[in-house]
Amino acid sequence: MAETKRTEISELGEFGLIDHLTKDLKPQNASTLYGVGDDCAVLDYSGNDKEVLVTTDMLMEGVHFDLTYVPLKHLGYKSAMVNISDIYAMNGTPRQMTVSVALSKRFSVEDMEDFYAGVVLACQRHNVDLVGGDTTSSLTGLAISITCIGEAEKGKAVYRNGAGQNDLICVSGNLGAAYMGLQLLEREKAVFNSTPHSKDEPFSPDFAGKEYLLERQLKPEARGDIIKQLREAGIQPTAVTSRLHICKQSNTGCSVYQERIPIDYQTAVMAEELNMDVYTCALNGGEDYELLFTVPLTDHDKIIQLKDVKLIGHMTKPELGRHLVTKSGQEVELKAQGWTSNL
Amino acid sequence: MAETKRTEISELGEFGLIDHLTKDLKPQNASTLYGVGDDCAVLDYSGNDKEVLVTTDMLMEGVHFDLTYVPLKHLGYKSAMVNISDIYAMNGTPRQMTVSVALSKRFSVEDMEDFYAGVVLACQRHNVDLVGGDTTSSLTGLAISITCIGEAEKGKAVYRNGAGQNDLICVSGNLGAAYMGLQLLEREKAVFNSTPHSKDEPFSPDFAGKEYLLERQLKPEARGDIIKQLREAGIQPTAVTSRLHICKQSNTGCSVYQERIPIDYQTAVMAEELNMDVYTCALNGGEDYELLFTVPLTDHDKIIQLKDVKLIGHMTKPELGRHLVTKSGQEVELKAQGWTSNL
Repeated sequence: MAETKRTEISELGEFGLIDHLTKDLKPQNASTLYGVGDDCAVLDYSGNDKEVLVTTDMLMEGVHFDLTYVPLKHLGYKSAMVNISDIYAMNGTPRQMTVSVALSKRFSVEDMEDFYAGVVLACQRHNVDLVGGDTTSSLTGLAISITCIGEAEKGKAVYRNGAGQNDLICVSGNLGAAYMGLQLLEREKAVFNSTPHSKDEPFSPDFAGKEYLLERQLKPEARGDIIKQLREAGIQPTAVTSRLHICKQSNTGCSVYQERIPIDYQTAVMAEELNMDVYTCALNGGEDYELLFTVPLTDHDKIIQLKDVKLIGHMTKPELGRHLVTKSGQEVELKAQGWTSNL
Repeated sequence: MAETKRTEISELGEFGLIDHLTKDLKPQNASTLYGVGDDCAVLDYSGNDKEVLVTTDMLMEGVHFDLTYVPLKHLGYKSAMVNISDIYAMNGTPRQMTVSVALSKRFSVEDMEDFYAGVVLACQRHNVDLVGGDTTSSLTGLAISITCIGEAEKGKAVYRNGAGQNDLICVSGNLGAAYMGLQLLEREKAVFNSTPHSKDEPFSPDFAGKEYLLERQLKPEARGDIIKQLREAGIQPTAVTSRLHICKQSNTGCSVYQERIPIDYQTAVMAEELNMDVYTCALNGGEDYELLFTVPLTDHDKIIQLKDVKLIGHMTKPELGRHLVTKSGQEVELKAQGWTSNL
């Protein structure tokens, strides 16, 4: 087996490393005037019909990711995607990104190349320019901070709190798969740690038939396609988020129908294997980066035409509370934590 | 002595903590449409004559700051100021900021109140709105990531690489004081660690006569006043930075006159005590957050009228190289690292 090349970051220095990682990037957006290389990036959002959206996330090793089983390229991809998803969750279009990393001595230039390759791939897929960031040292582990900047048509940015009574609640894709992917990775890590293995007899994790769960956990996709469909269909959502808080912020009640919650087959199988309630996982697991949104009741006929969008319930008067209507017709209160998902 | 109150962050939760820390903030800038509380902040930069500036910095405990001697309020103030300074270093006006922190269990809600009090104070001084961020967990220590957003008149953003031959090199304030402040704090920390002390006989560090150095290290001020003066005097700088790279990026040479480099009296005394060359400290120490900038030769008569600005040299043809002209008239090469300052 060939040795992997390892170049120490100190060989390039901080500025050398940034130059090295960003030298081939070409801005794709007219709003990017100047990217990496000065005290600031310079952007042009002076068109009269746009608002600027800004979102930021911080990811810490050992808290938000485990490098035992997350390849650095996937980590870069996901870190970028999480922020891109937050721009879509305002009904916006992502345009620029800054990426800051703090890293300990165990990381090499090649590691950072892998991480940036993932970031750049996510950016390219969503037409986002990498315009800046910071690269610095850490005493322990890897810390990542990403800021994404996007735009929305003036007055068309959609907040979490805009949902009205009787609005329809929709969700894209399916829920709970990313959480089940994490459970799977944690299970195999535990097996790895308790099983003898060597160079000659390497450990092979058992992921057969569960590839989709891994993909959802390691390589989530921000749902720009859903925002595009909504625009093309002339539907202005009343509230959007990729993290489930709409009811809490909109001061409405809601009814969500259990049988309408989209669950993938692999998610259901894995939940059964682990003896977990799949609906609890779907509503509380987080990390799916699907869009949860509400639309006026009058858009019902349009919304049911959309690809990969499912109607799961409707908003109600606040005094009716927030309920999950089970398959047997029981109403179960949706607890606040049931509507908070975290990366 | 009264016990200091300690509230665990888990009592509030992540969203509760952010609400608690930001609930009293009122946006001051017309460009801030929506701040903390949704997936993104929403800004309006649609005026036809503005460009948007974005800068970001990451600060790690044990690398960029030492909580043994840096109070959290000062840390918040400085972290914000560093980013504000980068906006001025593009000839811009800072407007919005996002602040992300990752913190280990040893930090309490009260600690975060102190940190945010510093951030908010810096923001208020420079009329910046705190519009978002992220608060999350860390396994070890404190990590801070700040992004500052500002604006410049269209075409008036100033880069590091705009300096022409014969331009005058100017610097605000004085140099080396922040570095000497750091040396002083490190010296007293070493004394503290090697001296017996108790509750009854507490350690008192020896800072007498060196208060200015401490202030420069712990509470730097971004030089918005210099940018304002330049505007009022009708001077358009050709290059600006708060981190010394102008010559390298502008592809010019330069001559800097040692006797013109502004050094405070306390800086000089401290350098002598430590047997260090004060000019090396001034040029390499960093963290002063003074502005280094160039102006056309034709602005000479205007520039010498400005308060707290000193002319220290001039740009030359690239083939002449980069030199420090010593008091005795010798030309010493300015090495690349001599023009890189870091926080």
